[in-house]
Amino acid sequence: MDTALLPHLTRELGSRFFVAPEALATVATDDSGLVALPDAVFFPKTTREIVKLLRLADRYGFPVIPRGAGTGLSGGCLATGDGGVVVVTSTMDRILALDTENLIAVVEPGVVTKTLRDAAASVGLFYPPDPASLATCTLGGNAATNAGGPACVKYGVTRDYVLGLVAVLPDGDAVRAGVATRKGVVGYDLAGLFVGSEGTLGVITELTVKLIPHPREVRATAALFPDARTAVTAVAAIMASGVTPSAVELMDRACLGLVEELLPFALPGDEAALLLLEADGDPDTAARDIGRIEALCKDAGALALLPAPDAARREALWDIRRQTSTRIHESAPVYLSEDVVVPIARIPDLISELPGLGRRFGLGVFAFGHAGDGNIHVNITGGEGSRDRCASLARALIEIVLALGGTMSGEHGIGLAKKPFVAMELSPRSIALQQGIKAVFDPKGVMNPGKVLP
Amino acid sequence: MDTALLPHLTRELGSRFFVAPEALATVATDDSGLVALPDAVFFPKTTREIVKLLRLADRYGFPVIPRGAGTGLSGGCLATGDGGVVVVTSTMDRILALDTENLIAVVEPGVVTKTLRDAAASVGLFYPPDPASLATCTLGGNAATNAGGPACVKYGVTRDYVLGLVAVLPDGDAVRAGVATRKGVVGYDLAGLFVGSEGTLGVITELTVKLIPHPREVRATAALFPDARTAVTAVAAIMASGVTPSAVELMDRACLGLVEELLPFALPGDEAALLLLEADGDPDTAARDIGRIEALCKDAGALALLPAPDAARREALWDIRRQTSTRIHESAPVYLSEDVVVPIARIPDLISELPGLGRRFGLGVFAFGHAGDGNIHVNITGGEGSRDRCASLARALIEIVLALGGTMSGEHGIGLAKKPFVAMELSPRSIALQQGIKAVFDPKGVMNPGKVLP
Repeated sequence: MDTALLPHLTRELGSRFFVAPEALATVATDDSGLVALPDAVFFPKTTREIVKLLRLADRYGFPVIPRGAGTGLSGGCLATGDGGVVVVTSTMDRILALDTENLIAVVEPGVVTKTLRDAAASVGLFYPPDPASLATCTLGGNAATNAGGPACVKYGVTRDYVLGLVAVLPDGDAVRAGVATRKGVVGYDLAGLFVGSEGTLGVITELTVKLIPHPREVRATAALFPDARTAVTAVAAIMASGVTPSAVELMDRACLGLVEELLPFALPGDEAALLLLEADGDPDTAARDIGRIEALCKDAGALALLPAPDAARREALWDIRRQTSTRIHESAPVYLSEDVVVPIARIPDLISELPGLGRRFGLGVFAFGHAGDGNIHVNITGGEGSRDRCASLARALIEIVLALGGTMSGEHGIGLAKKPFVAMELSPRSIALQQGIKAVFDPKGVMNPGKVLP
Repeated sequence: MDTALLPHLTRELGSRFFVAPEALATVATDDSGLVALPDAVFFPKTTREIVKLLRLADRYGFPVIPRGAGTGLSGGCLATGDGGVVVVTSTMDRILALDTENLIAVVEPGVVTKTLRDAAASVGLFYPPDPASLATCTLGGNAATNAGGPACVKYGVTRDYVLGLVAVLPDGDAVRAGVATRKGVVGYDLAGLFVGSEGTLGVITELTVKLIPHPREVRATAALFPDARTAVTAVAAIMASGVTPSAVELMDRACLGLVEELLPFALPGDEAALLLLEADGDPDTAARDIGRIEALCKDAGALALLPAPDAARREALWDIRRQTSTRIHESAPVYLSEDVVVPIARIPDLISELPGLGRRFGLGVFAFGHAGDGNIHVNITGGEGSRDRCASLARALIEIVLALGGTMSGEHGIGLAKKPFVAMELSPRSIALQQGIKAVFDPKGVMNPGKVLP
């Protein structure tokens, strides 16, 4: 952007508009590990301030990059080479309504996901989407990326809960999309279009989300399998049994190797896989369902079960899953998180390709994730200077996933990191339609330019 | 359209392209009661034939109006004054895949909703959306209108189940939108945009839908209340209790008056209201939940309960609901079905306005519908020649609904019937964005012209 504008923007936008390098550094990266400095960062408190910013952007033609908590894994909230103004919505963090009669909440975009989940739970209600970063990520960011999480196998993703929203368009007009009720079909689904558009169509400044009754009990168990194929057989049997688990997390042998000392059993062989499963509902339903899940795991060939009948033992199981993630991060200087999806029955075919991919590129490959959705987080690690090789492995992985009938991203989005691969999955006509939609919302290309679409 | 084209189209499109008046008469109306004759009707068997039709439409500029089973209530599948070709997709009626491992089905658009539900149930799976016309309506039509139904209070609407689709665009290009997996966030949500677009963006020729485990048991009950306000208090108490019923149907006093002889109790007073409630899940869960629901109804002030512990008695309850609908239709020559939505807690405010509206316009007003969603079907009836008066009442109703924070349509869509009211609800900018999207997909305006958007 034309940096000669910055003094003018500083005068117009006031004390929460920063150009100092130390302020810019706070928004220079996200969990993708990509780094790019913007020219300025703005922390608005009101929709009106965002309107003001975008009117200026419309007039002067500089990029505006929306950002929540910066926990994204695809670089979607980063500036590009053209610089621009990062607008951080995490400062707009009020729960405007928690309506127990109508089972909805109205929130500003900066409300932390866990904050809403806790507030809802305190009145017996449930906001299901639970991305791994839920303790820090924001609902605005969740909506921008259509975030998922373990609970989505039973409860659906963020888009399934966004009933309506307010967004400021790139020219500074605020528009209301969707409804404040639990249903609505008037016109095209603009709310659903904003969800998952990764900040390329406008800045979301308010969300109306659907809440549901909170399950009264959660029960967990883990099951060790000789290999991923056997584990996925158990997943298919569980899903076909009439029970919908509220989490079906798979960890492959590479992941288990990182947390071996946390496991109460020795790892059998080179292909072992672990399933972490939950069932929720009424106390007796949850208990019975988890018992059924355990029986189905045994029938499918589980070598060991690790029941977690209380909260402490459940927490210990999830700690294994969380530690895996942390230790993958810490195991190497370069780290890339792919989140491919394949049809559930194809998960073993995917997992069996991973060791070979790792050897071929000389990189670490660790797979865990939401097996009940077919959504597997494939984590690629390498030494300093291996980023290009990691990207080459990611491309090879995506080729395999597409050949299996899958998609390159289940919940992390495209951002900058996966943009080079989009044309592998979407047809030229699909991309052209999306570019056409982008031009309708943002004819001057000021909103998060250079993201998502080729 | 230029009818001189018809002989050419007949030669090009073959034996399933009809121009005879008796063929046109079969597609001249839908359940809205509106009537409009097209110039031709086409019953394709393949996507390729639809491509051929739309290439011709693109070249010659004639309107193409997609139609499923014609059970819509808004005239969305009817020709307008410009005529054109109605393309009926009910002839493409194959279930292409019912994948029990991956919990998806792939269907052609003409598959009847109940056919898919039955096929899924036969392998233990569940396709929840259940519009009242499910025994005849098609999944293509359901997707075009984002159809709902009683089960949606627990399970969500059609859009929540459409993972991916193939659509033929107005210029004849077929495009794939969405995914074949249970999750996906690559690019904008084109699949979600097609869903609910009422055939204005393209012709859907294939759908991939999500299936879930089938609940093993359904239990029903009915509860009679002194008035709608008390009934809705019970609904709020139930929804906040941790139970999500699988149906929460309300019938107002006017409806009950039509089916009085089917009821095993005398109607108390002039404001009585009935709730029909279901709970599903495992047999003991369903039994316990329905017991809880009954207790909550009693606590809220129910005058009588009508438990239906078996399938026969459950069927008898639903028969009351179905008979109401039929008798409203039969009670008058003119009939208009509005399907407004208000926040759940505002339902009594809405219902209390209805008798006054009926008196003011000299028309019958009957309300039933999905109280758990706030989605109330307000049925307006009148004598011959009262259609304009019915529309005036509808406009007054929508004004009330919007003032209550609601929306004019929860599941029926806009079509022709509600198009005059759209600008009451959507802002000029929202409409402009939608017109922009329409122009991206259909620059020549051949797809279902004159529908939905002003």
